[in-house]
Amino acid sequence: MSWSAEARVRELGLEIPDYGDPSSGERYAAMRPFRRSGRILTLGSMTPEDRWGRPVHPGRVGIDVTLEEGYAAARYAAVNVLGLIRLALGSLDEVTGFVRTLTFVAVGGGFTDINKVTNGAADLWVEVFGDTVGRSTSAGIGVTSLSRGNVFEITASVQTRTSADE
Amino acid sequence: MSWSAEARVRELGLEIPDYGDPSSGERYAAMRPFRRSGRILTLGSMTPEDRWGRPVHPGRVGIDVTLEEGYAAARYAAVNVLGLIRLALGSLDEVTGFVRTLTFVAVGGGFTDINKVTNGAADLWVEVFGDTVGRSTSAGIGVTSLSRGNVFEITASVQTRTSADE
Amino acid sequence: MSWSAEARVRELGLEIPDYGDPSSGERYAAMRPFRRSGRILTLGSMTPEDRWGRPVHPGRVGIDVTLEEGYAAARYAAVNVLGLIRLALGSLDEVTGFVRTLTFVAVGGGFTDINKVTNGAADLWVEVFGDTVGRSTSAGIGVTSLSRGNVFEITASVQTRTSADE
Repeated sequence: MSWSAEARVRELGLEIPDYGDPSSGERYAAMRPFRRSGRILTLGSMTPEDRWGRPVHPGRVGIDVTLEEGYAAARYAAVNVLGLIRLALGSLDEVTGFVRTLTFVAVGGGFTDINKVTNGAADLWVEVFGDTVGRSTSAGIGVTSLSRGNVFEITASVQTRTSADE
Repeated sequence: MSWSAEARVRELGLEIPDYGDPSSGERYAAMRPFRRSGRILTLGSMTPEDRWGRPVHPGRVGIDVTLEEGYAAARYAAVNVLGLIRLALGSLDEVTGFVRTLTFVAVGGGFTDINKVTNGAADLWVEVFGDTVGRSTSAGIGVTSLSRGNVFEITASVQTRTSADE
Repeated sequence: MSWSAEARVRELGLEIPDYGDPSSGERYAAMRPFRRSGRILTLGSMTPEDRWGRPVHPGRVGIDVTLEEGYAAARYAAVNVLGLIRLALGSLDEVTGFVRTLTFVAVGGGFTDINKVTNGAADLWVEVFGDTVGRSTSAGIGVTSLSRGNVFEITASVQTRTSADE
């Protein structure tokens, strides 16, 4: 039987935000949440914010956010990315491969375990999509600050089953 | 009547640098200003520098650059990107969609309104290309420093009407 | 006679790591070292680490790493990227163009000559692939910290002679 990301989401009991709901869609003014070109779906960057724009574990790892909280924030943002994918494709099962992931972690105080924070996102996608589809090329960068004080920001592109331009 | 980005540039009175002029082209030594592959045009990163390489509003937002100056610098860099697009395609009207934008802002002093700075670029592109073409997926990151003390740096890719490899 | 990157590697006497060797491949757990989609090969980010994961010139340029050491670290990471390309394509001669390069340099103390560090990577690729293929669009960003204390991190995508999805 083939792997289904949507079935895995149900098994894991993940709550994925519905960005088709206008109250959330309004957050994107001069930006697009996604763009499709050929078989590549480019996703706008996501932060670990809830539906009301409240940051989860805001601050900087190494100062006022622990490694464990940073990992949880990365996982939270990765779940939000699933919401974007559903908005773009209708179903997570239309994804045939994660192509590229760039992650940024707000850090300070000499903190250098960036990869241990960003694993929160990488691990989530492997849990949902499995090894073949869910593993992505990746970079994790420790930066000064992110919008609205968020501790984490992630931008990704995925390959889709079908081709489209929109 | 269909939207014309070139007509909009004239209406807005924007001065776009001509990177076909050698004195400017010389800035790209071991780097390319752009690369086309299929319908994707990948643009080299641009800073808010004038034709003579002088940074506009250099420094860091939150320390020696205001939010308004940062916004103006972002807009200035976004206009420079238009010069790159003309160099690559001959006309802005060959662009069918902004795909991906990554923006970096040099910040300090706990400044976190990154998105309010990077809107300077996003707003300019929507003014020139309209909502459908001009809105891009985007990420805005607050960093320690940028080349030559610039306050802003932007890298983008766009979809083009025709396919090419160069 | 046409340019051969593999011949150039032999002329330059470069030692390129063999990432097909399991002891190194193990470093990629929840991440992929590369993903191919159409003619674009997206490469995972590389740091200036040797085969045993030891960082070359760790620290921050402007504090405890000199500009020259930063340049050397960038060159070292760019050689590691060649190892990834061989893992993905079998031969460097399958590359028809460097498309996009993002580089991050850990900096401090007001250091802003980011581009002089990242040139270590750009120069190496031009030495190996020549101007037409080896020059890439590029961005160089000065950041707070990178994984495992590395001073440099680079992520790139290249165009390949043939099309594939894997």
